[in-house]
Amino acid sequence: MNNELFERWIQQGSLSIPKILLTHYRKVGLTDEECMLILQLHSFIEEGNVFPTPSVLSERMHIDVNKIASLLRVFIQRGFLSIESFEDKERSVYAEKYSLLPLWKRLLGELGEEQHGERTAAKKER
Amino acid sequence: MNNELFERWIQQGSLSIPKILLTHYRKVGLTDEECMLILQLHSFIEEGNVFPTPSVLSERMHIDVNKIASLLRVFIQRGFLSIESFEDKERSVYAEKYSLLPLWKRLLGELGEEQHGERTAAKKER
Amino acid sequence: MNNELFERWIQQGSLSIPKILLTHYRKVGLTDEECMLILQLHSFIEEGNVFPTPSVLSERMHIDVNKIASLLRVFIQRGFLSIESFEDKERSVYAEKYSLLPLWKRLLGELGEEQHGERTAAKKER
Amino acid sequence: MNNELFERWIQQGSLSIPKILLTHYRKVGLTDEECMLILQLHSFIEEGNVFPTPSVLSERMHIDVNKIASLLRVFIQRGFLSIESFEDKERSVYAEKYSLLPLWKRLLGELGEEQHGERTAAKKER
Repeated sequence: MNNELFERWIQQGSLSIPKILLTHYRKVGLTDEECMLILQLHSFIEEGNVFPTPSVLSERMHIDVNKIASLLRVFIQRGFLSIESFEDKERSVYAEKYSLLPLWKRLLGELGEEQHGERTAAKKER
Repeated sequence: MNNELFERWIQQGSLSIPKILLTHYRKVGLTDEECMLILQLHSFIEEGNVFPTPSVLSERMHIDVNKIASLLRVFIQRGFLSIESFEDKERSVYAEKYSLLPLWKRLLGELGEEQHGERTAAKKER
Repeated sequence: MNNELFERWIQQGSLSIPKILLTHYRKVGLTDEECMLILQLHSFIEEGNVFPTPSVLSERMHIDVNKIASLLRVFIQRGFLSIESFEDKERSVYAEKYSLLPLWKRLLGELGEEQHGERTAAKKER
Repeated sequence: MNNELFERWIQQGSLSIPKILLTHYRKVGLTDEECMLILQLHSFIEEGNVFPTPSVLSERMHIDVNKIASLLRVFIQRGFLSIESFEDKERSVYAEKYSLLPLWKRLLGELGEEQHGERTAAKKER
């Protein structure tokens, strides 16, 4: 009984997320709610569920299935998310997976502009 | 130039978050937006800024300063967040820090009930 | 071409490890080499390969297969590692998995004694 | 008492490490012991101690201070580690920091060659 809490914690495990998402999602135009959806996507992808359905995603959130399906399409249109096909060798089929690489690049691009702006401002001050 | 993107990514670093937060925040009554605020708090605490102001938190989010101040109070009332005082030895002063320990325990409690429910249901099926 | 390095990095992903392992493995009597083996075990378990073979483990390390098999036995004898059986529901079989829970508890126990020692020493100083 | 173990665990926190380090350190010529030293360096850097002394590093390991000082030099010679100077704005001084960026690039280069080799081999098989 004494250790049950601790064991349950260990079994759940941790997820590693890029800090830049938390610091810059607002700057690339994502709402707080949309950022939570991105985090859920990232969590499924990292666990090996590379193409989670809107239904699976909505079970953990307050957004309903239709809204999630629509947000995923919007993410793709806005260049935050891409769908790639790959060969699933275990099952010998071609399958699809989400990639958040476009978003990571956008966030880094945003950061790059900030840093460039700071350097330019620093020069002017001199 | 070729490596600039990669270097920027490395410098930003990663944050480790408990998976149970993503899977169970809805079950303890947190909205998607409130969960983002919890994540921002966790991020500051892990970086050593143990008592971030509502103003600092709101810079990264779409929630305004007053709403954040009010949410932090609500988190404390609902038993998700606590404020602890500690001795800051470097500066020789007593200071305050936030702790998310109450929330982690609530999430684990929720998970425990689920698992207990599943075991009970499994027994009835037999 | 420009982004290849970055994409490769993202695809590899990150692993979350308990900091207490790095700070206290020496105190519980693990060598640097043994700690690397623990980290490899932890990495496989987190990726879902819950019972990695000595052969798979040795491919990533400088320790040969026989030495690894022997170290795993020693870890169990010394109370760092346990083997648990569980029901693999997908394949409908009972399988075995490693658990590092005993080690995490030992490390926390070690930390607890240190902190107790510090408190006792602080009292005596007064 | 019941929760003490759990609270201690939470306070220690987690460290995020690149998986490619665990899977490829052997391939770039690092021993198991040297990889532990890299992990300790990474841990200090991430916590904000960007230029840990050999003495601080040796406290957590089985390698003595002189050997650690010598290994750090070797890491620099072999292109795994670099020392960069930066402006510490809080203290208004120029300071030095370690960077593991050269190692991350080497590991990715190694992975790139593997993948290239696999593609070439796959073509020949056809």
